[in-house]
Amino acid sequence: MLGAEILVRSLVAGGIDTCLGNPGTSEMHFVAALDRAPGLRSVLTLFEGVATGAADGYARVAGKPACTLMHLGPGLANGLCNLHNAKRARMPVVNIVGEHAAKHRQYDAPLHSDVEAVARTFSDWVRTTQSAATIAEDCAAAIAAACTPPGRIATLILPADTAWTDGGEGRAVPVPAILPAPVPATRVTDAAKALRGERGALMIGGDGLSVRGIEAATAIAAVTGCRVFAPMSNARMARGWGVHPVPRVPFAVDDAVKFLSGLDAVVLAGAVPPVAFFAYPDKPGLLAPPGCAMHELARVDEDVLAALEALANLVEAKPVAWQSAKRAKAPSRGPLTAQSLASIVAAQLPEDAIVIDEALSLGFTLYPAMAGAAPHDWLQMAGGATGEGLPLAVGAALAAPRRKVVCLQADGSGLYTCQALWTMAREGLDVTVVVLSNRAYATLYGELAKVGATEAGPGALGMIRLDRPDIGWPDLAKGFGVPGVRAVGCAAFARALGTALAKKGPALVEAVIA
Amino acid sequence: MLGAEILVRSLVAGGIDTCLGNPGTSEMHFVAALDRAPGLRSVLTLFEGVATGAADGYARVAGKPACTLMHLGPGLANGLCNLHNAKRARMPVVNIVGEHAAKHRQYDAPLHSDVEAVARTFSDWVRTTQSAATIAEDCAAAIAAACTPPGRIATLILPADTAWTDGGEGRAVPVPAILPAPVPATRVTDAAKALRGERGALMIGGDGLSVRGIEAATAIAAVTGCRVFAPMSNARMARGWGVHPVPRVPFAVDDAVKFLSGLDAVVLAGAVPPVAFFAYPDKPGLLAPPGCAMHELARVDEDVLAALEALANLVEAKPVAWQSAKRAKAPSRGPLTAQSLASIVAAQLPEDAIVIDEALSLGFTLYPAMAGAAPHDWLQMAGGATGEGLPLAVGAALAAPRRKVVCLQADGSGLYTCQALWTMAREGLDVTVVVLSNRAYATLYGELAKVGATEAGPGALGMIRLDRPDIGWPDLAKGFGVPGVRAVGCAAFARALGTALAKKGPALVEAVIA
Repeated sequence: MLGAEILVRSLVAGGIDTCLGNPGTSEMHFVAALDRAPGLRSVLTLFEGVATGAADGYARVAGKPACTLMHLGPGLANGLCNLHNAKRARMPVVNIVGEHAAKHRQYDAPLHSDVEAVARTFSDWVRTTQSAATIAEDCAAAIAAACTPPGRIATLILPADTAWTDGGEGRAVPVPAILPAPVPATRVTDAAKALRGERGALMIGGDGLSVRGIEAATAIAAVTGCRVFAPMSNARMARGWGVHPVPRVPFAVDDAVKFLSGLDAVVLAGAVPPVAFFAYPDKPGLLAPPGCAMHELARVDEDVLAALEALANLVEAKPVAWQSAKRAKAPSRGPLTAQSLASIVAAQLPEDAIVIDEALSLGFTLYPAMAGAAPHDWLQMAGGATGEGLPLAVGAALAAPRRKVVCLQADGSGLYTCQALWTMAREGLDVTVVVLSNRAYATLYGELAKVGATEAGPGALGMIRLDRPDIGWPDLAKGFGVPGVRAVGCAAFARALGTALAKKGPALVEAVIA
Repeated sequence: MLGAEILVRSLVAGGIDTCLGNPGTSEMHFVAALDRAPGLRSVLTLFEGVATGAADGYARVAGKPACTLMHLGPGLANGLCNLHNAKRARMPVVNIVGEHAAKHRQYDAPLHSDVEAVARTFSDWVRTTQSAATIAEDCAAAIAAACTPPGRIATLILPADTAWTDGGEGRAVPVPAILPAPVPATRVTDAAKALRGERGALMIGGDGLSVRGIEAATAIAAVTGCRVFAPMSNARMARGWGVHPVPRVPFAVDDAVKFLSGLDAVVLAGAVPPVAFFAYPDKPGLLAPPGCAMHELARVDEDVLAALEALANLVEAKPVAWQSAKRAKAPSRGPLTAQSLASIVAAQLPEDAIVIDEALSLGFTLYPAMAGAAPHDWLQMAGGATGEGLPLAVGAALAAPRRKVVCLQADGSGLYTCQALWTMAREGLDVTVVVLSNRAYATLYGELAKVGATEAGPGALGMIRLDRPDIGWPDLAKGFGVPGVRAVGCAAFARALGTALAKKGPALVEAVIA
């Protein structure tokens, strides 16, 4: 059996059912093997960053990795940015990257590069297959590496000659199940001691932000009097009515410092100590008050949920029922602001939807308002590298074809990977894209002022504004095969959103923010 | 003076007048300085790959580097693919990459990565500025590195704190002029000996493909009887009537082997020995016949033009006049094929145009036909990493605002960096984009067969075809602010191209290939 076919079979045997990618010549044997070894759904993307971002989104919803397929060093380079985001989201991803045949590398052909060096920049695990005979073993090792808790980026480099030569029988090598490590009991008792009164806080991340995790944390807070909050960015959070709303550490340093002020102990469960996103002159990097102790209940690679439930047991916490206030009545007229948009989305969101938040400057307004929506999962771009919203939506929709995906996408960052719209159209993905159109990298207005550069001239503003010309999002959507409309004002937006949500399949609404 | 302002002033003092980029928070001081230190035209791109590809195109036409501005490791990652192409084109590029302030790197903030490791993958020179006081020196070193013949990728990493602190007077440090090394006379005499009869060939690249270089090579061939040809991919070639047409080594290995068969000596002038683009089972990597000697007349970093002219003198070559055949009459009706499209473009091309060739599978048909067009420069994506055509057009148009740029762009590769259209609209660039629309990664059909994977099933074809849905290029163009039309058939294409060429400013014609 050819190495390429062994690889496809090994991926399937290892539980991988979805392959996202942009192949090239060196991957043609892998592509040809897709039809000989069934079980791997292949999804073409028009740009590698869509494939890697979608693999991240897939893992968040499916709870297991997808694989990507990329072409040599430059193709992998195009996928790195969203591998960074996936890595920060702590998601498992298995990358298959084609490479020149071994004998060809000496010639420094035009597409030659140091593929391993490119891979290492944003991978936790890298291996180059040495022969067709080891592919099954290499593939199992890659999947195992990706699935090492909490989730890692594994890159397997596949020289073309290992794909096109015979590798024998190609029996799949079993992938060991790697469970998150249990948390020692002493850490649970230490956490219980730390969480006494409102000067203590429980910061939950990872699986701690599931319904069960939030319930346990809320119960602990009710007994101990501590606060509960989450990191600024999270791979996945349970939200909507019936789920206690969990506040997040704010983005702006001053707001974050204020948010954390008064604390003398923070217990971390699947989260790391809060730090500033960027450095600024004369602002702190660590956000918690000086002297505030950090207690590690569960590291990000440990069993966060079990640790939280053990802590709840220890403090004899009881479940606390939560029924959110009635849904805010969505405004039916007036200008469309982040606030009114959030109310309209919250009112219309179908049950069990997956919401993607790459709303950036508008996101912190949307977040609290959406607590009153129907139960949903809230997925954020976790690594801060813009351009993952639309790809995340692709991956989430592939993983959960029966759930509606709503992508709240800032306009500037959406343009990085707008090609994702075509994959939505091609695969018939049930995604409603809401483009928050403010015709600017609006975050940067604030940032320009924060770094002390207050008097922005035309040169600076030209690098921040997205006007001249305005982007025609409905036209872009149409070009990629997705129906799209532009909505100005609350009434038009509510109507357009309703139409988009009512039908199955991709649709785009450009919401012009007043 | 703040470090950021010193940097902008140093870039301008070093001869850099154009900055292409996507800034983020860590680059805000640099952005603010654009208005305090005049002389640097800042051009916003919607994606970093547009910025780096445009910097490549700018250098090819301006003969000097532009600078790029990118945001941390992930932003730089997005620009790597076209840095690979620029590196293979041997063009000078100066990258300015923002980085977290030094004290912030310990916190592993969400956007933290090893920026130097990312930079090293496709840069020839990398330095991280250590303090505002050394920025002028670092900038001069970066420009000098970029301008080291034949042209290099230099990446200067700028931690935010070095940008926002005072660096003193900030006097610009002079950038030494680095000229290509002269070629020793013995190499000229050796080359003259090798080039006797039709079993000898002169392979010219770099400046050897200028009008002067081609004239010298043609004159040498007339005296010695040798053949003259060029590498498969070239940064820039003089073409059109009045310029001897120079054939290129074909892409397909079998064709290339045939093309080179019978040679026993190849003299290299600004070129490297021809190798196969990819490896295939049972095909050679080196394309010249076994035993064919390679004589290096001028290395790519040496003075290729002077070496060719010295050789012409030595063999007492005389200029050979060349008048191309009358322009082929362009077909006025019938289906649009690569051949008829090429005739129509050749007939309509204005004098002194810059033609970008990222036509891939169709490019080898277009190339010979365009020999009969008005004199023009022919720029190819040189590194084989698709998605540089539109960015190259942006850079070429910025460098030569009075020349018409015609971008012959394959559809599949054009989608990688379609965001370049917006920068064309915003900057009013005089670019006519011709999208060669065959709704497939057509190169890969051939590649699938060549690797022996002849029976492509639906899974494989789904990764190669660009249909379901077809891309609506005029819609994409409109969304980015560029007028666009779709043309089916020769008559419609000739009309649409005429309209696009007649006006100043960007326009797109989707040429549907029959």
